[in-house]
Formats: sequence, C-alpha cells, structure tokens
Amino acid sequence: MAITYELIKQCPQTGARAGRLHTPHGIFDTPIFMPVGTQATVKAMSPEELSTMGAGVILSNTYHLFLRPGHKLVEAAGGLHRFMNWDRAILTDSGGFQVFSLGPLRKITEEGVAFRSHIDGSKQFLSPEIATRVQMSLGADMIMAFDECVPYPADYEYARASTERTTRWAARCREVHTRSDQALFGIVQGGMYKDLRSQSARDLVAMDFPGYSIGGLSVGEPKPLMYEILDHVVPELPANKPRYLMGVGTPDCLVEGVMRGVDMFDCVFPTRVARNGTLMTRQGKLVVKNAEYAEDFRPVDHECSCYTCRNFSRAYIRHLLKAQEIFGLRLTTIHNLHFLLDFMRKMREAILNDEFVNFRRDFLAQYGLH
Amino acid sequence: MAITYELIKQCPQTGARAGRLHTPHGIFDTPIFMPVGTQATVKAMSPEELSTMGAGVILSNTYHLFLRPGHKLVEAAGGLHRFMNWDRAILTDSGGFQVFSLGPLRKITEEGVAFRSHIDGSKQFLSPEIATRVQMSLGADMIMAFDECVPYPADYEYARASTERTTRWAARCREVHTRSDQALFGIVQGGMYKDLRSQSARDLVAMDFPGYSIGGLSVGEPKPLMYEILDHVVPELPANKPRYLMGVGTPDCLVEGVMRGVDMFDCVFPTRVARNGTLMTRQGKLVVKNAEYAEDFRPVDHECSCYTCRNFSRAYIRHLLKAQEIFGLRLTTIHNLHFLLDFMRKMREAILNDEFVNFRRDFLAQYGLH
Repeated sequence: MAITYELIKQCPQTGARAGRLHTPHGIFDTPIFMPVGTQATVKAMSPEELSTMGAGVILSNTYHLFLRPGHKLVEAAGGLHRFMNWDRAILTDSGGFQVFSLGPLRKITEEGVAFRSHIDGSKQFLSPEIATRVQMSLGADMIMAFDECVPYPADYEYARASTERTTRWAARCREVHTRSDQALFGIVQGGMYKDLRSQSARDLVAMDFPGYSIGGLSVGEPKPLMYEILDHVVPELPANKPRYLMGVGTPDCLVEGVMRGVDMFDCVFPTRVARNGTLMTRQGKLVVKNAEYAEDFRPVDHECSCYTCRNFSRAYIRHLLKAQEIFGLRLTTIHNLHFLLDFMRKMREAILNDEFVNFRRDFLAQYGLH
Repeated sequence: MAITYELIKQCPQTGARAGRLHTPHGIFDTPIFMPVGTQATVKAMSPEELSTMGAGVILSNTYHLFLRPGHKLVEAAGGLHRFMNWDRAILTDSGGFQVFSLGPLRKITEEGVAFRSHIDGSKQFLSPEIATRVQMSLGADMIMAFDECVPYPADYEYARASTERTTRWAARCREVHTRSDQALFGIVQGGMYKDLRSQSARDLVAMDFPGYSIGGLSVGEPKPLMYEILDHVVPELPANKPRYLMGVGTPDCLVEGVMRGVDMFDCVFPTRVARNGTLMTRQGKLVVKNAEYAEDFRPVDHECSCYTCRNFSRAYIRHLLKAQEIFGLRLTTIHNLHFLLDFMRKMREAILNDEFVNFRRDFLAQYGLH
C-alpha cells in the first residue's frame, strides 16, 4: 500500500476523528488542511515557509501542469517533488474539475473530455487513462480518479448519468494505474441526491480504493444541504481509509466537515483572499487594507504565532498592499495558511482530549455563527 | 559621530580600498552594494532573506515614503527600521533624484521643488529643510542632502548654476539636521565638467560631512566619461570618510568604481532585471525565460551558493516566470542580489590579498569586456 491510514481517536459524540496518514513522503496528522499549489508552487510561498508552518501535504493541479510545463517535463525533472523541491506529501487532483469548469470550451463523451487550453486556445483531451498517466508522471503520493463534478443545481437524470459515468471512469483509472508508490483515490459524486451518493460510494468502495474523496460539494448549494449530504455519505465510507472533502476550506465548513468524519480538505480560499488583503482570525475576517488600520501598529492577531504576526504590524502590511508590494502578498498568505493549519491542529487536539464538541461550540460562538 | 569609516587596506596599484563602516545599526564591510528597498521593502524579499545573503545595509527612497505611507506614519511606527523589521543599517536618499525625474510635473526654485505626486496627482513640495526633516522622521542611519541631479547632457551654465544651488542646499540641510544618530552625506554634483566637480567637492568637504555621495553619474553618459569624472572627483574627497556612488550597480561599473576608490553603491538594476527573468552570472546574463532553458534541470549558476541555485533548476524558474508565479520573482531576485553581494565580497577579499588588479583583469575577460 502506498499510504496507510491510522485511526488514533474517534470522537464519542460525533463523527470527528484524529488520525495519521503514512505516505512515501512522510507522515501527516489528520484532520488536515492542504494548501493549494496549483502550478507547482503555493502562490507566494517557499517550500521552507510551508514546512515551517507545519504543512505536511500540499495539493497541485493536474490540469494546469498538464498544459504548462507539461507532465513529461515534470517527469524528466524527477517528478513534482523534486521539480518544486518539496519533500513532503503531495496530492494531485485529476483535472476533471477544471476541464468541466471551462463551460462551452469543453465537450464530454464516454471516452473523456475534449477542451481548449485557457493558455493558448489549443485543442486538448483528457480521459481517465490520460489523467491517470499524467498523474503517474507527476508522481504525487495521492492521485485522483478522473471524474465529473456534477454541477449545482442538476436534474436527477443528469446527475444519475454523470455519476454512473464517473464510476465507470474510476474503474478505467484503476485499470491503468500501476505506480505502487501512489495511492489512487475514488471520488464520490451524486450531486445533491442521497440515493445517487449512496450508489456512488458503494460502487467505489467495492473497487477498494486506498482513499475516498467527496466531490461535487461546495459548488453553490446552501451549506446546510452540503452538511446533510456529508451526514449521509461519510458513513458509507470505510473507517480504515482517509476521506477527503474536495475544495472546502472556510473555518466553519472545516469544523462541520471534521465533525462528520472528514480527514482532509483543500481550498484556494485562504491564499486567494490573502492576496486581496483579507486576513483570517478566530473572530472572523480582518480586511487589512481598510483605512482604520493605517496607523494600527498592532499585529494582525495578537494570539497568532505566525511569522507575519510576530514581526509586522497591520499598518506595515496595509502599506505594502496599497503600494502593490510582493512582500505584502507573502505576509498575508503566510498568516492565512498558518491560521488554517493551526486551526486544524487545535481541532485535532480537541478530538484527542474529548473536547471536540466544546471546541465546535466555542468556535461557532466566537466566529459569530451561533 | 553617527558613523565611523575605518580604512583597512588600500590597494597599492589603484584607488581601491577595503574598509568597514560602523553605524548605529551594525557594522558593514566596504566596498558594498546596497539593495534598494524603495517603498520600505526590497521588492519580493523578506528581511531574513536579505540578512542571509549578507546584506548589511539597504537603501530606501524618501520621495516614495514621503508620499506613501508618509514619514509621520513611519515615525509613529518607531522609524523605518522597526516599521519594516530591518535591524541592520539603512540609507535614505533625499528625494531629489525622483522629483527631478518627474519632468514637466515639477518646478525648481531656490526655495525647493514643487511637484505633483505620481500616485494621486496632488501638489507637493520638497525643500532642503523638508527633505531633511522627512529623513529625520524616517530615521535611517545615513541620509542624503537634498540635491539636483544635473541631467546629461547639460550646458555649462545650467550645470554651474544647478551645482552651486545644490551646494547652498547642502548647507541648509546641515543647518536643520539635528539627529546625532544619523549621518548626513553631502552630494557632489557638477555634471560632466571637471572644474564644477572640483568646486562642488571642495565646497562640500569644507562643510565637513561625515560621508560624501557622488551624484549625477550613470545618467546616460558613456561609461568612459563616467570613469573619467570618477578619476577626477574621488581624489578630492577625504580618505577618512565613506564615498558613495549613487545609482550604479552593474558588475563592470562596480569594479571600475571600486578601482577608483568608491565604497558604497546602490542600483535597482539587479532586482528589476530579476523580475524580468534576467539572471546575473560571472559569464554575463542568463535570460532564464528563453526556450533553451525549458528542460534545463541545472541550477542557474553551478558556482553560486545562493538559495535559488542550491534548490531549484532553470526549468523550474522558467516555468514559474512563464506562469507568472510570485515565487519565480523571489527566486530570481535572491539570485541576483546574492550574486552582487558576493561579487563585492570577492572584490574586497582581492583588495585585502593585494589581488585586486588581477581580480579586475580576470573579471573583465570572463565578462566578455576585454
């Protein structure tokens, strides 16, 4: 097995669990948030900055690397870890989500998806076999089956046909995948329909993947509906395999996902809003570009131990962002990633101490949600 | 005295000299190159990255900080060192060069210069007194008298009148400057006219500044003419004070400046071209964006010990720049600054070992200049 999930503690009142994932590139504790390094770099960060803040695994995007610089180039470089000088774990998505997001620029058949590159408009094609081979070239520790993310809303018939095709595609991915140092995850789809979600989960579990992703959530549906689907799906998944909720990364959704038994999360949210000047705190967001912070010489968050909060003031960060200085983007990105990684560590600690229910209650109150 | 220049070794064959400058924020060895941190940040760099590569002093721009975030804000933050979290030496220019570069947007009188902000078009005014007070608020270790950089070409009468005014302005700066923990440098002007240069130098030396800058060079004149002016000016300056050649930072000009007895240099060149993908090496420039480096997995320079060269390939850096990733700008900036700082260290070593003449000869041959 390329990866092994070790269950360390199950919350007695909820589905929350603390675990540990063993990979060919190190061990990381779960639940965990994975910073997104779309183009073989987590925007504005160095590998050392990511290690220092405790990132044990990052995500990279197959769609982007397939188009630029090309998976064969990355393979020739010695794989993605070596290319970007990151020696901890990496997870790649399959490219499915990105090509389906291209809208009129793509065409889906049973064989795969024809699309045009967002970079140069060239004709491209991804299929379960190609996406899997591309990910084998990239060499991440965990890779994803090629799937269609059912849009929201979608009628039942569309969702059913799409989900069944995703299941057939998962079998094709499994067929061509040969790297024993990589774990291929199946992706549960099914839209907002519980019976389709159950069917998808059961079909994939029957194929015995080393890990399971939950796709097609956080795509525009109301949060309570996402939580309801999670309530329904997670119990269908085996307890001895990691569960990854794709594209989710706001603090409230992380707590709710963890409560329902999810182990892994990723999202561009913390890094994207950071570059816009929005900083995450336990009390909610702090928009550091606002005029009120012009002469505020306090750190962003006095409780935070990140590099940014230890060394720089709100006034300085605001100045850098106003002056469009790169270092400003570095400082805000460091803070937000540190915040989320630390948030997950604290959540895990709470699970280990049988305090998760209190942790969630206190967080929701502090965050202004309850 | 805010600063003390210690002469350690004089080259027996040339004007080159190795020294050491003692400042309220540490000691640095000379000759030295000062990275430029225009807006209270060296573009793309953290203070720790600058320290790691051995930067002992950086330059920041009064014009920019005066307009944004404002010197009073920086003063309220505890001064520039604290604002940007840099505990080594800082030198600020006077703003003169920037306001004169605004062309039709500025008007010079004996009193000072009226101009419009490049940020919001607002009316602004700088004078010797204001520029000095602004620099006292910023709190750099070395500050510059407010001067006019005589443009090239300039007729004799213009150059004479301008240079004489710069001298009068220097006296006015000296009059209002009261911080004993700051050294105010006089700036030698005079355009390309040797007699005006001599007069300027003598008038300033008579005022007994703790350091002398040479301005108005590298403004479009042929390099041999710049070297000729340096040959003429440097001997006019006292041996026990530091000499700073403003705005010069290409390797060939650094060697020629050092040979003529200059101790300090600054230039945006290495950081600006870095962000364009041009990397400096002893063999000349390497334009890493070029297609020939697409699958080149070697470091930029196998002789270089910088973070970039120790950890990343040309192919990866090219990919980052093509993909417009911030980390690419960080890696190229680190390399170029490290290259220039290291180049200066090697030059100093050569002076100490009575090898400067050979160093210069070898460099010029390798760089393809002789």
